[in-house]
Amino acid sequence: MNNFTYYNPTKIEFGKEKENNIGEYLAQAGIKKVLLHYGTGSIKKNGLYEKIIISLNKSNIEFKELSGVVSNPLLSKVNEGISLSKENNIEAILAVGGGSVADSAKAIAAGAKYDGDVWDFFINKAEILEALPVFTVMTLSATASEMNGNSVIINENTKQKYSIASVLINPLISVINPELMATVSKEYLAYSAVDVISHCIEVYFTASTHPNFNSAIVESIIKTIMQTTEILLENPNDYDARAEFAWAAIQGLNGLTPAGTEGGNFPNHMIEHSLSALYNVAHGAGLAVVIPAWMKYYKEQNQAQFKRFAKEIFNSDDADVGIEKLESWFSKIGAPTTLKELNITRDGIKELATNANATANVWGMSELYSKETIIEILEKA
Amino acid sequence: MNNFTYYNPTKIEFGKEKENNIGEYLAQAGIKKVLLHYGTGSIKKNGLYEKIIISLNKSNIEFKELSGVVSNPLLSKVNEGISLSKENNIEAILAVGGGSVADSAKAIAAGAKYDGDVWDFFINKAEILEALPVFTVMTLSATASEMNGNSVIINENTKQKYSIASVLINPLISVINPELMATVSKEYLAYSAVDVISHCIEVYFTASTHPNFNSAIVESIIKTIMQTTEILLENPNDYDARAEFAWAAIQGLNGLTPAGTEGGNFPNHMIEHSLSALYNVAHGAGLAVVIPAWMKYYKEQNQAQFKRFAKEIFNSDDADVGIEKLESWFSKIGAPTTLKELNITRDGIKELATNANATANVWGMSELYSKETIIEILEKA
Repeated sequence: MNNFTYYNPTKIEFGKEKENNIGEYLAQAGIKKVLLHYGTGSIKKNGLYEKIIISLNKSNIEFKELSGVVSNPLLSKVNEGISLSKENNIEAILAVGGGSVADSAKAIAAGAKYDGDVWDFFINKAEILEALPVFTVMTLSATASEMNGNSVIINENTKQKYSIASVLINPLISVINPELMATVSKEYLAYSAVDVISHCIEVYFTASTHPNFNSAIVESIIKTIMQTTEILLENPNDYDARAEFAWAAIQGLNGLTPAGTEGGNFPNHMIEHSLSALYNVAHGAGLAVVIPAWMKYYKEQNQAQFKRFAKEIFNSDDADVGIEKLESWFSKIGAPTTLKELNITRDGIKELATNANATANVWGMSELYSKETIIEILEKA
Repeated sequence: MNNFTYYNPTKIEFGKEKENNIGEYLAQAGIKKVLLHYGTGSIKKNGLYEKIIISLNKSNIEFKELSGVVSNPLLSKVNEGISLSKENNIEAILAVGGGSVADSAKAIAAGAKYDGDVWDFFINKAEILEALPVFTVMTLSATASEMNGNSVIINENTKQKYSIASVLINPLISVINPELMATVSKEYLAYSAVDVISHCIEVYFTASTHPNFNSAIVESIIKTIMQTTEILLENPNDYDARAEFAWAAIQGLNGLTPAGTEGGNFPNHMIEHSLSALYNVAHGAGLAVVIPAWMKYYKEQNQAQFKRFAKEIFNSDDADVGIEKLESWFSKIGAPTTLKELNITRDGIKELATNANATANVWGMSELYSKETIIEILEKA
């Protein structure tokens, strides 16, 4: 086991009707004025917006609003939020939505306490030293953004999808009411499942050490996500399945699974980010295409763990069967598994590889993933 | 899944040589003066004391010392620490030792910020509203005290072993260097293993809901503890086994396993506390005696989960076999499984039951565990 630091100070308020306490949670933390940050309006249709406003008013929390966050959240919106926050002496960012809204809120939180360009943090030009506190009320479960310090943003000008990570932007409190997640489409539920599985397997396969305990936790998460996804595709209103999905998704990327493993790296995310940046593909859909291709490319480099995966997840002694079965499962739940399904032709691969290789440079992975290697992987997709 | 709050702000600094940074960690948290709290002197023999002093001096941290904490830590020592802290304007408690030292430090931390008698917190007469920050350098792994807000103390006058729980006494930072744990005796390693398993199975069997995900996590912890204990009994210097043991032990009682299960209760701990209080039995040894007896008593009340336990841990379809095999495993690693092995005769059972029933009252479990029920369980031991 490698040395590590584990620190996750986010408080999770999990369960039915907890969103009605959000004003109280903010007040208890001494917050008087928030930026209410949300997406393209679904929270106004389903009544969540009204609940939040009632709760804020009840606790005398003032608020400014910034809506319009799209999936694959944009730097322009982040900059809008930073300006609004600075102009209005905003004390905290309240994200109401899915992982994209949470990610956008975190970037605003960091930028609001910084005099330079927030993109500096994303290109390793500056370090986050201070941030406004972030609170979330989640309506979608996948990214674990509700319990980590990560934020992934697209810079529309440079076509870069880059990320930041700091415990200073971990949400102070995240409200997870699985009932609020019941309206997600089957398509996005499938993408979410793929996303969680991707978080789990990146480190599981790429780390140089594999403590049994960590592997067992990862397998528990993957099995839970697969079981509950199947239940929810049949019956979207199964509360317990929705709740287990949400809680397992959080454990998938809150720091627990890589602790002691030396961390590994995130090649599938690295390549997928280029699909999102260049083709605006949903993150989970892009991952479903990249993962089986990457697994076929990478399996020789960690045969023991690929065998273990096949055994534990699909009860097979053959590593190749593990990959095939995961790919079939992605198809079964409605996720694409080929570039063709995303309407990306062979001609696009070169540009994707150039873009992904630029990410590899920023992530310190360029020695492992040259442009040629990325092309080789994408050819398999 | 039930509603829950998960909040664990302890930072874990895990790995080799991390104890040498303790002064720096304290300084970074703005601490200038600590109470250095430890046991009966083994840290002076093995060199850890000196390392700590060097690190404190290097970071200009002043310190007062209070040693002499015994396993099953005593209220008198806690009161001594509270007086010392108040008299010397101590800013934080630094526990160097095992779970007993950490527990003692937490009680001191709470008492040092309270004008009344610290025992008030243990008998639910007062609530902890403030505490000094606690830091730990752990030399033993079992209680997970390094990452929770629990403290269990024996009041010598009243012969009560009672506990408190508050996130305010969660350690701010805990240093876990598995190398420091390599000198534990085989006997205490076995007791530690039993203790971790007990934390896992209390909620696993007694909660009214059993999300698959939580059960899978618990099973991962138990299997890890069993595997690594067997390795360590053979080779105490196997670093990776020691590290996995330590990390799994922490997960066993840091709030992760009960999240969403409605919590369950802790009957084995309740009964064992009387063994420790009246006979000064080591906690893990007492638990090894109580657990199989309690399982035999309780199994009809949750047949499905006892079957699952037998299947997942011992690959048997028979719940009784699961209990028998756990009992045999306790014996195999050198833990006692009968009252006789603790030199407690049948005559002692009545007094134990009276004492345990008093704990049941304080823990709100007296309806489930009458004196007669506790006698029935202890008769099986």
